[in-house]
Amino acid sequence: MAKIVCVLYDDPITGYPTSYPRDDLPRLERYPDGQALPTPEAIDFKPGALLGSVSGELGLRKYLESNGHQFVVTSSKDGADSVLDRELPDADIVISQPFWPAYMTAERFAKAKKLKMVVTAGIGSDHTDLQAAIDNNVTVAEVTYCNSNSVAEHVVMTMLALVRNYIPSHEWAVKGGWNIADCVQRSYDIEGMQVGTVAAGRIGLRVLRLLNPFDVHLHYLDRHRLPAEVEAELNLTHHDNLESLARACDVVTLNCPLHPETEHMINADSLKWFKRGAYLVNTARGKLCDRDAVAAALESGQLAGYGGDVWFPQPAPKDHPWRTMPYNGMTPHISGTSLSAQARYAAGVREILECFFENRPIRDEYLIVQGGHLAGVGAHSYSAGNATKGSDEAARFGK
Amino acid sequence: MAKIVCVLYDDPITGYPTSYPRDDLPRLERYPDGQALPTPEAIDFKPGALLGSVSGELGLRKYLESNGHQFVVTSSKDGADSVLDRELPDADIVISQPFWPAYMTAERFAKAKKLKMVVTAGIGSDHTDLQAAIDNNVTVAEVTYCNSNSVAEHVVMTMLALVRNYIPSHEWAVKGGWNIADCVQRSYDIEGMQVGTVAAGRIGLRVLRLLNPFDVHLHYLDRHRLPAEVEAELNLTHHDNLESLARACDVVTLNCPLHPETEHMINADSLKWFKRGAYLVNTARGKLCDRDAVAAALESGQLAGYGGDVWFPQPAPKDHPWRTMPYNGMTPHISGTSLSAQARYAAGVREILECFFENRPIRDEYLIVQGGHLAGVGAHSYSAGNATKGSDEAARFGK
Repeated sequence: MAKIVCVLYDDPITGYPTSYPRDDLPRLERYPDGQALPTPEAIDFKPGALLGSVSGELGLRKYLESNGHQFVVTSSKDGADSVLDRELPDADIVISQPFWPAYMTAERFAKAKKLKMVVTAGIGSDHTDLQAAIDNNVTVAEVTYCNSNSVAEHVVMTMLALVRNYIPSHEWAVKGGWNIADCVQRSYDIEGMQVGTVAAGRIGLRVLRLLNPFDVHLHYLDRHRLPAEVEAELNLTHHDNLESLARACDVVTLNCPLHPETEHMINADSLKWFKRGAYLVNTARGKLCDRDAVAAALESGQLAGYGGDVWFPQPAPKDHPWRTMPYNGMTPHISGTSLSAQARYAAGVREILECFFENRPIRDEYLIVQGGHLAGVGAHSYSAGNATKGSDEAARFGK
Repeated sequence: MAKIVCVLYDDPITGYPTSYPRDDLPRLERYPDGQALPTPEAIDFKPGALLGSVSGELGLRKYLESNGHQFVVTSSKDGADSVLDRELPDADIVISQPFWPAYMTAERFAKAKKLKMVVTAGIGSDHTDLQAAIDNNVTVAEVTYCNSNSVAEHVVMTMLALVRNYIPSHEWAVKGGWNIADCVQRSYDIEGMQVGTVAAGRIGLRVLRLLNPFDVHLHYLDRHRLPAEVEAELNLTHHDNLESLARACDVVTLNCPLHPETEHMINADSLKWFKRGAYLVNTARGKLCDRDAVAAALESGQLAGYGGDVWFPQPAPKDHPWRTMPYNGMTPHISGTSLSAQARYAAGVREILECFFENRPIRDEYLIVQGGHLAGVGAHSYSAGNATKGSDEAARFGK
């Protein structure tokens, strides 16, 4: 008998949907690198339904309760009187999502004496203090690849929207105008531009592949060099430092994990390396960027556009400057939680829980921390340490 | 001595820009099929400047006036008291753009006794009554390929924005919310979807190529079959009628010219062939679609989204339902008039005028009508006849 505390985002303001725009999801065979899609023994949800919000419950209630476990689902996650804090002392497993993260700080680990596993329903475990997980011998797992392609689509969409000045042009249409010159005086083609990614892991490499037929020139910064045949196929230019990448590129996208070494890599100093009028797209983590330096770069024209869906903390405060700074293409943190992605991460969490309860090994590609060490993909993508500092600011906004 | 009347869209409401977001444009070598970029003997503008609005004058004034010609530039184009109508009787050449079309109806041809050439600064000559041009022995030319890739980028951007529910999600961010479930209950990945184009000419084929790495399944409808090696490369499914394409696809984009046979091909009857929750993107011509049938399909849920940038007439009336119908990703007609495209179509118009005045042949690929016949690309893409009917409605909106 275990107790699972699951932190999910709120239902739509109109209530849990009873119908959806489309009748089904396309069926995918496997991930691009050959990794298998999630393989739970069964699922109790319909792919295409809203699973990531409170009523959706990741489709897990029937499975967990029929196996005698206690399953608490809440969106209340910030501040000492949150449901999460109240339930933590006897929780065995905490599940949350990057979109609505349960910030698992060292303080919370100290309270959660029975904690055995922290699961991310999605990708990215920076909301968990990995050092504390290591120190407390808590397993950290995430559903690697479940929404990498989803995020890559969002990156390409956002690049095009910024470069082409889409959203301001849409607004002219809605408000009754035909102000073509107002729309296009900031509108360019991406064709021919120099486009670079910081990190070329699953998302970054996907972005490069998606952009290749646009006849752009592709660049990447990564401490791991891609295979020579991939570099040749995509005609990639490799950079070994951010300054080199930024000086070369018209469009830069961040696709690296957040850890202490990458925190605030985009700041007032590094922004000077960018070409005037560059575009920056960040769907990785908000804390990779200095919030106010980005806003200032848009005001000054150093950046021509900034987009993405990640903020710090999350939920973003109502007065977060990225909501209203000029030329932004921001959304709430949604790129990895399309209905398509939800079906995969819900199945992946189910797979992880089945393994845990049945004492079967969790796939290596899902593991970040296990047995007091960085493990699996975590050993490749993360450094030990803590990037959760400042998350208590979320309580200012929270519920 | 010739008189050239050039109809362009208005300057930005803030006036002609004195600076731009970026310092230069990428340099392109050639179009994807090997066609050369425009080759005027000289240009008198800076690529990247706003050329398509009244103050931009397509960068032509110095060239034309230094050769003794009269050059009239105006945005006044609709109704009997428009500058266009006043200048028509002794005009030798009329230039306009699809974004702000001078509707060259049979009535206007009858008034323009000296008219020798109608030039589209862009692509698409449906705003000209081609039958009247044939009957009056007027040359019709356009700058083939100048903005095909621009439009294809807009198509892919719009598809992603509709499928992923981008604009409504952005609006949540701007207005201070963190309503993830509200954003994503209509958000899908395009990966795995069936995507089809009506027509696979320069734009349609480019769209197919751009989409290929997204791991979608690609379809096309065209009376001209693509080469077998292209079909194999992109794993294309060919359809020979709209019903077949619509029944197969989750996303459909229109990339055919408007002529009497394609007018209103999307109507209440043909919309029934689409899957419930399909997306439709039209950057070709507004009149390909029955306006009210499209709006009704969005209201009913038959379509999950409609986007693009073409309307009828143009400018679109302030009360045009596509401005405010649900799940629309519309913009004014801008996809082919990015600053990048403007540099190419301004150079192309210059090339056409140089050829005309120096009695050199205009490139075959620019010709639509010449010598009383459909000619050049016109013979491939157009049918004789008239698709300008109803354009007098534009006068209702006018300036």
